[in-house]
Amino acid sequence: MSKKIFAVNAGSSSLKFQLLDMPSKHVIAKGIFEKIGSQQGIFTMEFKGRKEKELLDLPSHQFAVQHLLDALLKQQVIRSLDEIDGVGHRVAHGGESFGDSVYVDERVMSIIEELAFLAPSHNPVNLTGIAAFKKALPQVGNVAVFDTAFHQSLRPEFFCYPIPSRYYERYQIRKYGFHGTSHQYIAEKVAALWEEQGESAADLRIISCHLGNGASICAIKNGCSVNTSMGFTPLAGLMMGSRSGDIDPMILPFLMQQEGLTAQAISDLLNKESGLLAVSQLSNDVRDIVEASQQGDGKAALALQMFVNRIAQTVAAYITDLAGLDALVFTAGIGEHSALIREMVINKLNCLGLFLNPSANEQGQLFIQNKDSKAKILIVPTDEELMIAQDTMRILELEQQSSEIQTHKVARTGHTT
Amino acid sequence: MSKKIFAVNAGSSSLKFQLLDMPSKHVIAKGIFEKIGSQQGIFTMEFKGRKEKELLDLPSHQFAVQHLLDALLKQQVIRSLDEIDGVGHRVAHGGESFGDSVYVDERVMSIIEELAFLAPSHNPVNLTGIAAFKKALPQVGNVAVFDTAFHQSLRPEFFCYPIPSRYYERYQIRKYGFHGTSHQYIAEKVAALWEEQGESAADLRIISCHLGNGASICAIKNGCSVNTSMGFTPLAGLMMGSRSGDIDPMILPFLMQQEGLTAQAISDLLNKESGLLAVSQLSNDVRDIVEASQQGDGKAALALQMFVNRIAQTVAAYITDLAGLDALVFTAGIGEHSALIREMVINKLNCLGLFLNPSANEQGQLFIQNKDSKAKILIVPTDEELMIAQDTMRILELEQQSSEIQTHKVARTGHTT
Repeated sequence: MSKKIFAVNAGSSSLKFQLLDMPSKHVIAKGIFEKIGSQQGIFTMEFKGRKEKELLDLPSHQFAVQHLLDALLKQQVIRSLDEIDGVGHRVAHGGESFGDSVYVDERVMSIIEELAFLAPSHNPVNLTGIAAFKKALPQVGNVAVFDTAFHQSLRPEFFCYPIPSRYYERYQIRKYGFHGTSHQYIAEKVAALWEEQGESAADLRIISCHLGNGASICAIKNGCSVNTSMGFTPLAGLMMGSRSGDIDPMILPFLMQQEGLTAQAISDLLNKESGLLAVSQLSNDVRDIVEASQQGDGKAALALQMFVNRIAQTVAAYITDLAGLDALVFTAGIGEHSALIREMVINKLNCLGLFLNPSANEQGQLFIQNKDSKAKILIVPTDEELMIAQDTMRILELEQQSSEIQTHKVARTGHTT
Repeated sequence: MSKKIFAVNAGSSSLKFQLLDMPSKHVIAKGIFEKIGSQQGIFTMEFKGRKEKELLDLPSHQFAVQHLLDALLKQQVIRSLDEIDGVGHRVAHGGESFGDSVYVDERVMSIIEELAFLAPSHNPVNLTGIAAFKKALPQVGNVAVFDTAFHQSLRPEFFCYPIPSRYYERYQIRKYGFHGTSHQYIAEKVAALWEEQGESAADLRIISCHLGNGASICAIKNGCSVNTSMGFTPLAGLMMGSRSGDIDPMILPFLMQQEGLTAQAISDLLNKESGLLAVSQLSNDVRDIVEASQQGDGKAALALQMFVNRIAQTVAAYITDLAGLDALVFTAGIGEHSALIREMVINKLNCLGLFLNPSANEQGQLFIQNKDSKAKILIVPTDEELMIAQDTMRILELEQQSSEIQTHKVARTGHTT
């Protein structure tokens, strides 16, 4: 039976949504509220081939959600709120508590709140989004889909940091990894592709390169995350649009002492003023940097090469963690759309037996390796909203089954356990 | 003609030395002064097959150097101070000023002092050592051999950090790399081995793994350092005895805020309480950890695996930077003596076509790859003192030539230029 599922991503002043028809995966409507908390709010929605934009007072996320539901009814995208079957929410940090998506009840909400110290600018606003949908649609089940959950399969050798263990015990400092929804989507999509072609997906070794303004790489074996480049926070690993990625940690205390910077200031510096932006002195957007580089800008060329070096190095490193490689996947904005970046990365990986088919790469085909390549190389558009909707369906069905069992037990024994 | 050269490494409360006969490379005497600055000083010296230990008041480095020269005369290791032809000093940080060893004059000493902000616990004591030998042996030339100089060949794509460039301009924050003397020694030794076997050493691609209590890896092409794992400081890169190596930089401000730590405290924590010591909760010494691991200690096993993972990952990454590999070299304490660590590392590199000959590895032979291995794998004992002595010879000869030219010019024109 067809179901309508919301996939929601609530930010501090924004709320992105898609309404999907499942399991057809058809996007019924999608859009975003921006500048929530101000009188200059913007509401944009695409539906039935139309795109509408509205300027309005947006006092709160609650107001935005109510406005969204009213708009869907008014525009006859849905005829009744009863048609909504579930709401899936992207939640930044599930800590060690959540290795999978979960049905949202009071207990889950309080754990997400407790984990806010690990993601202070995300978990609280994610909760605000959940609360708004719970209030507006009290009969509809909500599911939390964590950006970290997919990486809970990491073994200690990959999630431990070589610092005193008291900091793991006190603050749960370990590698969590992020972009889990995207990497999991890639893992499932590639496994499905293999099976469609009549090949076994068992023990399939995938390296998924999610290259967007935020960027991370994930080593995947048999559908499970083995290692990933983001760490305790999304700063770690690759060089990104405005994030440094890994640097000598001693640069931080050195700069703090020399410049009298606070912990917050150094954190902002590395998250917002670094990466491609800092080296190119131009932009955090790879498209701008590629263009400048092609016009002879030396700093832009340097930024690109540094970005590519780190990607190729990380892929090579993860081949050792997977003891080999079957599929190298490029996804997200840069991964899906920059043939040049893909080409530069693969050129650096020629020495490991990975080779590109240049025209397939230029055309953005699904498979872009050449016949000599030891591993397949793919471009797979990621779809985090679809992954959220699928997970929401799955978890709601589990919840339904479990509550039916529970009801059955109550009917038999007269009390809950 | 045979020459006697000192190779000196001055620490804050210690002074290590070797007196070498060059070019025969014979070590005439070697030893160490410990607890300089105290009345419980220790002087140990090996010479003529004997080892002598003396407890004495050691007020200063100057006193230690004078005592060393007196002891060499008294023990008839040398007959006269005139036999000393040169003194080579290990200096920690040459910044961007020194891409090679250099003859020490007043200008050089003042630059080393200016660079002390980059190596506050090393450069000043290195200067103290130089000053002590200059005073005790005023007629003898001194040469500074920098731990960073070999890596000055890194291109910007490998030495730049993706942080705002003002910090490079203000404080020269960039990757310097360390263990340069050791990596250069390996580079020269391996090239010589290739040539001895009638193979060309041109464009030879070497990855040198210097694995001691401090550990770094260097990618070398055609005798030049291309990339290296230590960075702005010796903390960066690999997990080490008590140093964390690279971790998510955001862990630092997070911990500083949670625990109210100062910049100095977090720096001490990552340099002295982390690495193998922190994970094993046992020791910073790989020998202790291997033993505990073999007796079933889970934390020790985890520490070893993390240590090995990072080495294998870095080797794989550097293969992409070199576009291939001809020789993988293990050196320094762990690299030369732990067959287990070498085996664990190579096992993780099997997927890249590197294979061990297990018995050659156990026996600690020079070449330890098997016939299927795509690259040679070697154990090469490093010899930083010999490298310092060789560099000292070379620089003193250059200085001699240049001063002869200068003298000649003065004789011809009657004035210096």
